[in-house]
Amino acid sequence: MDRSETSTAVPRPWKSFRVRQRDGDAKRVAVLETAAHLFLERGYRSTSLRELASLLKITKPALYYYFQNKEQILVECYRAGIASIEGLLEEAELNNGNGLQRVEAYLRVYATAVVSHDFGRCVAMLDDSELSPSARREVRTLKRRIDASIRGFIEEGIEDGSINDCNPKLAAFAAAGAINWIGTWYRPDGGLSRDSIAAGFAELLTRGLARHGSAPMRKKTRKTATRRIPKQLQE
Amino acid sequence: MDRSETSTAVPRPWKSFRVRQRDGDAKRVAVLETAAHLFLERGYRSTSLRELASLLKITKPALYYYFQNKEQILVECYRAGIASIEGLLEEAELNNGNGLQRVEAYLRVYATAVVSHDFGRCVAMLDDSELSPSARREVRTLKRRIDASIRGFIEEGIEDGSINDCNPKLAAFAAAGAINWIGTWYRPDGGLSRDSIAAGFAELLTRGLARHGSAPMRKKTRKTATRRIPKQLQE
Repeated sequence: MDRSETSTAVPRPWKSFRVRQRDGDAKRVAVLETAAHLFLERGYRSTSLRELASLLKITKPALYYYFQNKEQILVECYRAGIASIEGLLEEAELNNGNGLQRVEAYLRVYATAVVSHDFGRCVAMLDDSELSPSARREVRTLKRRIDASIRGFIEEGIEDGSINDCNPKLAAFAAAGAINWIGTWYRPDGGLSRDSIAAGFAELLTRGLARHGSAPMRKKTRKTATRRIPKQLQE
Repeated sequence: MDRSETSTAVPRPWKSFRVRQRDGDAKRVAVLETAAHLFLERGYRSTSLRELASLLKITKPALYYYFQNKEQILVECYRAGIASIEGLLEEAELNNGNGLQRVEAYLRVYATAVVSHDFGRCVAMLDDSELSPSARREVRTLKRRIDASIRGFIEEGIEDGSINDCNPKLAAFAAAGAINWIGTWYRPDGGLSRDSIAAGFAELLTRGLARHGSAPMRKKTRKTATRRIPKQLQE
């Protein structure tokens, strides 16, 4: 294994995770899944590699075959979450519809990722204040891409008249924040289904943006079959 | 100083903080302010009491005169934030208006607290996963009071017809989450003023709730002069 490829400062986060997925490195993914769960359950700091290895029934040195250190594991969880959101965005076919419809579809995808798996929750919840400067820089760049995507669609909506005149930066922060926060209260065994949370949040948050007199937002997220990803997420 | 009064399991959080404020314990408040700032800047775990004492130009034993341990300082920061929100709510005179107007006024107050000082940000941002069970229980109870207040006003709004039929639990989580998240991106020297953030968020988040055909939300938060606090925050 080429260690340089797994440095925390890898400049091509999406690609590197996807290449590894294609390589079918199932053990590596199992490490990440267990780590993501532990980080979310008890905090990054309180999770030890010894405990992680023990849960996976492997030795601590075996962990170091896959990852250089705990920080790298956290960054990789984050990359996995972003890759999953990207996959969901492709399925959601975001390239049709007006700005408002695209904002709603994007928010629904993002909320779905946060309620569906631990990697999605890592993207939403990760506290990057304890990371090294280079890892923090990478994680913040990934986070900013999400805000930038939402903001881009809001700007499109203002331009095409589907979204009320507003501060796109503030509106994007409000929407992304509401969804990121889901990770703090969501429990899979709680009373709300994943779909009702994702659809409910997307609707509530876009209703606040809709230009007065716009049609209600329901039943607008199914689009035709172009499968390009939005320009904000293209590398 | 009666140590038992400052236990992390004090059952009357509001009162105990206010009594101390009346006692004019300025040094104690200075410790809390500096600690809140450090917790937010570099994380709770990474802040040491030695460093806190050094910044305050006092000895570490002197810190123990005021607080039993770091955890208690964190819980007290949280209480101070709640007390400040309570004070702002009294000023906002929330007892008039329909449910929608009260939700907007409440959200504006809450957002103002988050952007105005570190104690407000502690309420929004605090990661309670590393606290002891009793401290965590107290902090979560305080957090739930905020969600319950917002939810209560939303339910009132649905009843009085000012708010669209929706899931009040989900809507309260969305609004509180968007505001809590402000703490992750807000910088006092950023391009957005406190007032524009607080008013902008309150407006965006309540527009999403407003029943179709309701009047726009601006200029509705000034009320007449009753100064009771909402029932959700009364002890």
